[in-house]
Amino acid sequence: MTFTIQQALIPTDSCYQTVDVQIIGDRITAIAPQLEPVGTLIDARHQLLLPGFVNAHTHSSELWQRGAIAPYPLELWIAELHEFSPLNPEQAYLSALGTAVETLLSGGTCLVDHLVLIPGQEIETIAASVRAYREIGIRAFIGPLIQDQDLAASIPNGQARRRIAPFPRTTDEILDMMQTVVEKFHAPEQGISIMVAPTGTQLCSEALFNGCMELSDRHNLCRHAHLLETRAQQLLAQEKYGCSAVAYLHKLGYLSDRTSLAHCIWLDDADIAIMAATGATVVHNPLSNLRLGSGIAPVLKYRQAGVNVAYGCDGAASNDGQDLLEAIKIGALLHNITDADYRHWLTPREAVQMATLGGATGLNLAAQLGSLTVGKQADLALYDLTNLSLLPRTDPLGLLVMGRPTQVVKTAWVRGEQVVAEGQPTRIDVADLRQRLWAESAWVGDRHSTTRDQLEPHYRQVMGLPE
Amino acid sequence: MTFTIQQALIPTDSCYQTVDVQIIGDRITAIAPQLEPVGTLIDARHQLLLPGFVNAHTHSSELWQRGAIAPYPLELWIAELHEFSPLNPEQAYLSALGTAVETLLSGGTCLVDHLVLIPGQEIETIAASVRAYREIGIRAFIGPLIQDQDLAASIPNGQARRRIAPFPRTTDEILDMMQTVVEKFHAPEQGISIMVAPTGTQLCSEALFNGCMELSDRHNLCRHAHLLETRAQQLLAQEKYGCSAVAYLHKLGYLSDRTSLAHCIWLDDADIAIMAATGATVVHNPLSNLRLGSGIAPVLKYRQAGVNVAYGCDGAASNDGQDLLEAIKIGALLHNITDADYRHWLTPREAVQMATLGGATGLNLAAQLGSLTVGKQADLALYDLTNLSLLPRTDPLGLLVMGRPTQVVKTAWVRGEQVVAEGQPTRIDVADLRQRLWAESAWVGDRHSTTRDQLEPHYRQVMGLPE
Repeated sequence: MTFTIQQALIPTDSCYQTVDVQIIGDRITAIAPQLEPVGTLIDARHQLLLPGFVNAHTHSSELWQRGAIAPYPLELWIAELHEFSPLNPEQAYLSALGTAVETLLSGGTCLVDHLVLIPGQEIETIAASVRAYREIGIRAFIGPLIQDQDLAASIPNGQARRRIAPFPRTTDEILDMMQTVVEKFHAPEQGISIMVAPTGTQLCSEALFNGCMELSDRHNLCRHAHLLETRAQQLLAQEKYGCSAVAYLHKLGYLSDRTSLAHCIWLDDADIAIMAATGATVVHNPLSNLRLGSGIAPVLKYRQAGVNVAYGCDGAASNDGQDLLEAIKIGALLHNITDADYRHWLTPREAVQMATLGGATGLNLAAQLGSLTVGKQADLALYDLTNLSLLPRTDPLGLLVMGRPTQVVKTAWVRGEQVVAEGQPTRIDVADLRQRLWAESAWVGDRHSTTRDQLEPHYRQVMGLPE
Repeated sequence: MTFTIQQALIPTDSCYQTVDVQIIGDRITAIAPQLEPVGTLIDARHQLLLPGFVNAHTHSSELWQRGAIAPYPLELWIAELHEFSPLNPEQAYLSALGTAVETLLSGGTCLVDHLVLIPGQEIETIAASVRAYREIGIRAFIGPLIQDQDLAASIPNGQARRRIAPFPRTTDEILDMMQTVVEKFHAPEQGISIMVAPTGTQLCSEALFNGCMELSDRHNLCRHAHLLETRAQQLLAQEKYGCSAVAYLHKLGYLSDRTSLAHCIWLDDADIAIMAATGATVVHNPLSNLRLGSGIAPVLKYRQAGVNVAYGCDGAASNDGQDLLEAIKIGALLHNITDADYRHWLTPREAVQMATLGGATGLNLAAQLGSLTVGKQADLALYDLTNLSLLPRTDPLGLLVMGRPTQVVKTAWVRGEQVVAEGQPTRIDVADLRQRLWAESAWVGDRHSTTRDQLEPHYRQVMGLPE
């Protein structure tokens, strides 16, 4: 596609300017005021143009349980999540589509789907989400969520002696499945990439991490995982390895400049130094971290130490919206209470840079994505500055990041293809999606999880909570 | 007006039921399944009916500076706010209207406007906001923001000796103005109430508080103020009174069951006991508290101590959206990181009750408002549960509170009058409002506050920050 975006407002280092942007094929080919128009002309007056945000961590199929799980910490919340996840591939398709719609309409053009697989239908789950992302036209990194240990293993033993059930599949079977997935679906030049994404040290063996690294090296895949989301995980790492989970992953060789790690809340200064030295990226999921009571990731410290930070929504069962602007807002403001010196606080401009270039960097794509730069991919979003939620006019980025924008994304492109027009996805029928999500679901009032009941007494004991 | 809302979903103690609700005049007259229809029939199938939320603290005219102020703590932020507030009454009217629109469209039917007055045009400012609220039909409590000390007095002295300029108006002049305001505008039976609302102990004399209490007693007015929003204010109270600001206000007699106090972050256990004993209400403004780095109000402790808690957005210059659902969400989730025992965490149901009955209680209106109860005022909102942001169907309150609802309020009534229909205010032209907000404003990139510059060195010194 060839087009010229005319008279868009774009941020400069400390202010704004009005420019035209020329796109040929999938690339930005020129940015300057009053360019010679080429191709289709896009009137961008009264609109802010930004590179697309990256939602650097989500789990699309959790959409089926958004709003459903009562306030619990991760280790109990996840028991309930697993108990009520009897999905079929068609539902996985619909939740991927729903997640992609909310991403696009909040300025995201790329998402990382740490995809929960339906047992026995792993390949079909991935095929369904790939189909959804290709249809809607979003750039997607799919990291099939794998583990080779039973859920109960994610809670530290403490003083207790427990028998933990073996995992129903062997490590080799899982790695073979991953090899098949890479061969079938990895197509980065078409906007679909597979990542290796063991769920985290709390549920994965060393052999699984080693197998993932091999795959990653062989096929040049990005690496992903959860890391030190909860205090329980911090205790568990000490129990399992006698060192922090960061030191352990570093020893294995998992940390690199194409490794992104979700959460990173319970890291100490030595861990932060390792993250900086290896070039690994922290994916900050502020809303999920609050909802699960996990804590506040030390994002200001990361930035001071030179660690790259990106934003994620996390799955919809632990952040029940999938709006990137909300995650960026809370992930900017939240840190003001962690440091009395306001000179360290994040500005709206810095938050936008984390959501764009920070996200691209975590996917090893900083040379291709994440800024308005000639030669980069045309993954772009235009925001309607005449929207009531962005009025009266003041500082456009301040309004977008610190306000509560509502339906402000007017147009978006991925790889030069238009995927949003007039505030609606262009390639799918949203009314039909709504109807299908409605039809496949039912109101629940007061549901009860027996798996959670089983884990709860041990969890409370090991975490020092009263009975 | 007489009407019957048919087949609405309403929350019960732990689940939901489908009912009809009959309204005659300004009151709810019956609630039951399949009522005999009277008056206009409202089809509420697939909609959730809730009592209207109360936005228990905002400053409407700050709308003109939303998105504009960089991340600063309150004491420096406010210097910038004051420096760039050259409003006229017509602008005050427009910002009141804009604030009311965002309140109504996020489920609020009542707001507390701690209204910043234009110097020399105090009565005109209030008249303008009263006009806006009457026009749009929202229930409003207007607390003219008064002080009788210069802004610099809000920063503790520490070791420094400072000359602080006298305030340009005397305490008596201010109290006379308030008397006039009450006589002219206080009309609770028409949905417009005046409150006494000295800004807080940091900028008000004892005489001003005493005068406000007299007015409150004489005219049965609610009382409002800011309270211990920042650590600087905690230090200042010790410096000025040798005790906490709560103990000081209690000694004056300002605390009562018709007193609501915004923020309440830096209270200790003795202060909390005073709040509980006096029946005063805490207004929790979580987004503003994060944006200004003020801290986290100990809301779980308040509830355990029996202190009533309501939610507020705070003004749009310190929480740049005015969406109550966002304030409720963050004001529910935020506290999960303050207490490891998840059994103390707020549920979506509890958060909704704080936003409804909690808000009404703070305005001494618990017998009139805040729940779906026969005999109470018909201040109601219907939410469209077929909206994409509330799908798939799970737990409706979970979706509403923990999700990211977008344009979900379909219909709303205040005092039995319909004020929102099909997701739009019925009594004003929103397109015209947008156009006027646009016309009265301009983009600003990089603005600079000289007042802030003047206060900053002393602030940093007294707060122990490096130069």
